[in-house]
Amino acid sequence: MEYEEPKFFHVMKYGIEADRDVIDMVSGNPDWEPPTALREALAAYAELPPAEFQYPPSEGILDLREAIAARRGIDVDRIILTNGTGEANYLGMARALERGAGSEALLLDPVYPYYPGKTELLGGEPTLVPTERDGGLDVDAIREAASEETTLVVLNTPNNPTGAVYDIGKIREVVEIAAEVDALVLADEVYDRFDHTGSFESALSLGSDRVIVTSGFSKSMAITGFRVGYAILPDEHVDAAKTRHMLVNVAGSRPAQYAVSHALEATEPAYYAEARERLADRIDAFTEALDTAGAEYARPDGGFYVLARFDGFPGTMENVKRLIDEAGVAGMPGDTFGTARDDWIRFAMVTPRSLEAAERLVDYFSEE
Amino acid sequence: MEYEEPKFFHVMKYGIEADRDVIDMVSGNPDWEPPTALREALAAYAELPPAEFQYPPSEGILDLREAIAARRGIDVDRIILTNGTGEANYLGMARALERGAGSEALLLDPVYPYYPGKTELLGGEPTLVPTERDGGLDVDAIREAASEETTLVVLNTPNNPTGAVYDIGKIREVVEIAAEVDALVLADEVYDRFDHTGSFESALSLGSDRVIVTSGFSKSMAITGFRVGYAILPDEHVDAAKTRHMLVNVAGSRPAQYAVSHALEATEPAYYAEARERLADRIDAFTEALDTAGAEYARPDGGFYVLARFDGFPGTMENVKRLIDEAGVAGMPGDTFGTARDDWIRFAMVTPRSLEAAERLVDYFSEE
Repeated sequence: MEYEEPKFFHVMKYGIEADRDVIDMVSGNPDWEPPTALREALAAYAELPPAEFQYPPSEGILDLREAIAARRGIDVDRIILTNGTGEANYLGMARALERGAGSEALLLDPVYPYYPGKTELLGGEPTLVPTERDGGLDVDAIREAASEETTLVVLNTPNNPTGAVYDIGKIREVVEIAAEVDALVLADEVYDRFDHTGSFESALSLGSDRVIVTSGFSKSMAITGFRVGYAILPDEHVDAAKTRHMLVNVAGSRPAQYAVSHALEATEPAYYAEARERLADRIDAFTEALDTAGAEYARPDGGFYVLARFDGFPGTMENVKRLIDEAGVAGMPGDTFGTARDDWIRFAMVTPRSLEAAERLVDYFSEE
Repeated sequence: MEYEEPKFFHVMKYGIEADRDVIDMVSGNPDWEPPTALREALAAYAELPPAEFQYPPSEGILDLREAIAARRGIDVDRIILTNGTGEANYLGMARALERGAGSEALLLDPVYPYYPGKTELLGGEPTLVPTERDGGLDVDAIREAASEETTLVVLNTPNNPTGAVYDIGKIREVVEIAAEVDALVLADEVYDRFDHTGSFESALSLGSDRVIVTSGFSKSMAITGFRVGYAILPDEHVDAAKTRHMLVNVAGSRPAQYAVSHALEATEPAYYAEARERLADRIDAFTEALDTAGAEYARPDGGFYVLARFDGFPGTMENVKRLIDEAGVAGMPGDTFGTARDDWIRFAMVTPRSLEAAERLVDYFSEE
């Protein structure tokens, strides 16, 4: 596989180098404060004796695993702390693909581009399956695509880029389909704290031995650079994932795990609520402006992103660059995310200038 | 691949649960202070604005990569910061094995057990090649083992477990053999700051496009838990390794990279010299006691470890447990490290009680 400079970096670089002020709505980096307890714990860690600076257990520090187990209501032995949700997805997908139960991974279109990338790295074959117009699960399409060759179905809820929050009844149907063809279902729930509907339910609640759940603290604690995530695996798949984790990474970074562990214990629900409401407000303001601009969009039920389509202005890389140069707003071309939204543009709401960006878009498209 | 509780943890657990005082000489965790600047930088990081808590570049923060490039005299573009030297080895070995140039990895016996583990994870076939009696490179044995199927030779210098520091002339010969069969040479130099001879020379000095060098700060800064390592690849292999790094881990942990970067800049040579001398003193005291105990050993030229053989007391797991119970000293069974030293025991000098441990061994074996 050749290295392709990810489009994210390409667009961000173009925006930075533009000869004007550009509002960055490209990356999924939170722009708000991490929990106060996280800062405090990291500073406290810096004073610990040298023994605390050495290898944590490969599966991660016990305090944090136990806190996750308690929150999730599961056995702590099922949890492996990983180098961000990215590694958790890698471990889960590897387990599905290495079992000798087929080599096909069903991925939903639009798709987070790391999923097909990881599938190919692991020697599997990604198949894109359409979703509903609003990004919701199309169970019939998944049933139709599933076959003997299918060993994995990857779900991401709340979804990047569509903002869909999958109905738990539909997830159950997908798990049943997976069971019929001996596939595993990996549910990436890293945006679970950013459910704007109140109806999100973790795939873990199904209690199925077909379900791997991944998540992390990158988004919920505004620390994408710390790399603390986790995979929750069915009992029979834990050991294989631990072996791979140890052979690839040995362990995750201990200061980061320590800080997250303390922050998870000390942080009140109000912190998460405030971050979620901040995003909801930005989404409101942004989508209202999209109405004015005459754009098509689906109001996101969760997550950080708004997908929008402007008539006569397909979301190609060329047009995304025009928007940077002529409107001063940077988004992501839709074809980054598979084929289903290739004339749309994804805007990340992780900037305090979301409203200003929306106004620039209104101005730009009303002048056209 | 089934998960096997690594023998390290098995022995450590046995030692901890023993009904007596046990001196732990099992793990390679430094027991001394990290650089003061590392603690200070980590505390300072905890105060930075939220933007500094987000994803670092996938290949690592530029300051640290530039500092490594300057120290090593190479182009910064060849450096990928990794989640410890463990990930660096994984990336380098993966690159060698995925090129379509064969599936065999030549590993030197005694062998660090992660090398065969990684080889098998990556679908390759490990072949153990003997070293000299003192652990030095046996170039003829490598020449004899190399074939069309060979795509990788892994060297570790200073060596774990033998303490050998490889002669650069012999490394050059190995690289020439590798070139003849289209193989790459990976040199893991994570113990390079613990050369007790003054003669260590990095494989990088050969300027060969066949050589991948890996290293990290786990040992040199006494921070095995931070997970900051790096791979230096020949130009033509950088992109493939970056792709794998991104798809597996996205990036390393930023607070750890930040702290190491500042510590690397601010730490005087005296810090490294002091750590090296501390180890050399422990090795002196320990090997002197081994003489008294009538044990065979090779005085290590570098690294943390002493391999010893006691007459009539082969270094099996059973005997290692006896030593824990009856002498109060915990080492590692020789068969952890391949076949060449399976009746030896490895002792790690990373405890201030090294001399006391040696005296216990003298007492134990003189009573026998």
